Amino acid sequence: MKAFIFDFDGTLVDSVYAHTLAWQEALAASGMSCPAWQIHRRIGLSGTLLVMAVAREHGRTLDDDEIKRLDKRHSKNFRALAPECPPLPGAVALLAHLKKAKIAHGIATSGKRNEIKGALKSLSLSSDAIIVDGNMVREVKPEPDLFLLCQKRLKVARADCLVVGDAVWDIHAARRSGILSVGLLSGGFGEQELYNAGAMRVYKDTRALHEGIEELGFE
Amino acid sequence: MKAFIFDFDGTLVDSVYAHTLAWQEALAASGMSCPAWQIHRRIGLSGTLLVMAVAREHGRTLDDDEIKRLDKRHSKNFRALAPECPPLPGAVALLAHLKKAKIAHGIATSGKRNEIKGALKSLSLSSDAIIVDGNMVREVKPEPDLFLLCQKRLKVARADCLVVGDAVWDIHAARRSGILSVGLLSGGFGEQELYNAGAMRVYKDTRALHEGIEELGFE
Repeated sequence: MKAFIFDFDGTLVDSVYAHTLAWQEALAASGMSCPAWQIHRRIGLSGTLLVMAVAREHGRTLDDDEIKRLDKRHSKNFRALAPECPPLPGAVALLAHLKKAKIAHGIATSGKRNEIKGALKSLSLSSDAIIVDGNMVREVKPEPDLFLLCQKRLKVARADCLVVGDAVWDIHAARRSGILSVGLLSGGFGEQELYNAGAMRVYKDTRALHEGIEELGFE
Repeated sequence: MKAFIFDFDGTLVDSVYAHTLAWQEALAASGMSCPAWQIHRRIGLSGTLLVMAVAREHGRTLDDDEIKRLDKRHSKNFRALAPECPPLPGAVALLAHLKKAKIAHGIATSGKRNEIKGALKSLSLSSDAIIVDGNMVREVKPEPDLFLLCQKRLKVARADCLVVGDAVWDIHAARRSGILSVGLLSGGFGEQELYNAGAMRVYKDTRALHEGIEELGFE
């Protein structure tokens, strides 16, 4: 194993629950109420897919303008709910270790770079770190595009990369890209959900992964 | 089967995610940061147990006054985040059915009656419904006291009661009380977590439970 590809929300930063309530309010304001847990389980998908799924349950189809308005309201809510969006336990130390040990690593997120720049800063990322965001690919998760672009930029063969994510959609996208993956509980998915999706191992968080990094084939 | 005993938050009303962020802010303001998912997994415990667990992780012990102050801040945050706290899908219809079919039912919640009265109202409960809250017992979940008191008030033998809850703590408290239980996904726990805890069946929400009510032995 030679390179890590990290998801962002729920994997490196503690943002999933704020995203959940931010989407719930935006959707409810447009007449599409949805229980929080069903939004939670869709975080990590593109915002468009999330909104389309809820709209379908309400027998509605949305045009691009409506989807954009919802996304804007969600972003505003999110900034109010989580102005800081701190790193999850172990994330900063793991990234610092990878930098020191010269292990290639990147971030591949469905989010938009300008919306996550504050949170990115809190991770004290290496300047070599590759960051691939939702603006750089045609389709985000659960499509494999983000992970494949990140892998290409890392210049490491797929067989030597490992995806780390907290959502079923990370694991699905990893499988579709032909890259192995491990799951983290730090986004609030259940352990068995991640194993069922295809994670080869599930850790509590990046701290626990860091403690067992040799078991994953990294030296 | 003759009687249902329902948990409240995450089972009948959509409040778990707001409780999670409300506790997270209150704890962080007291210098005890904790990832949202670890708070989420402790919702349904008494507030005191939740706070004590996080304090222990920070190497701190809290006196009663500090715990009360945290609880107060949590309550204030919660009201701001979830002023309405709507019923979960299927809850109102299931409770209306039980009333019409004369199936005994009650609610047993770790919360305090005066804090949940708005949300209780939204459920259009039968005036016969038994409600047992955290003020009425010495120990709340995962202790069995709440369920046992509710069962006594329902005047139905334990073997003929069924607990319905969304958290591992509901299932544990049910087992300790000698009452069988089913789990719901509507609080955001994973299915396997609830089965592992001892749920005899796991449904998506009260709507799905209602659709299969005969399978549980209710007529």
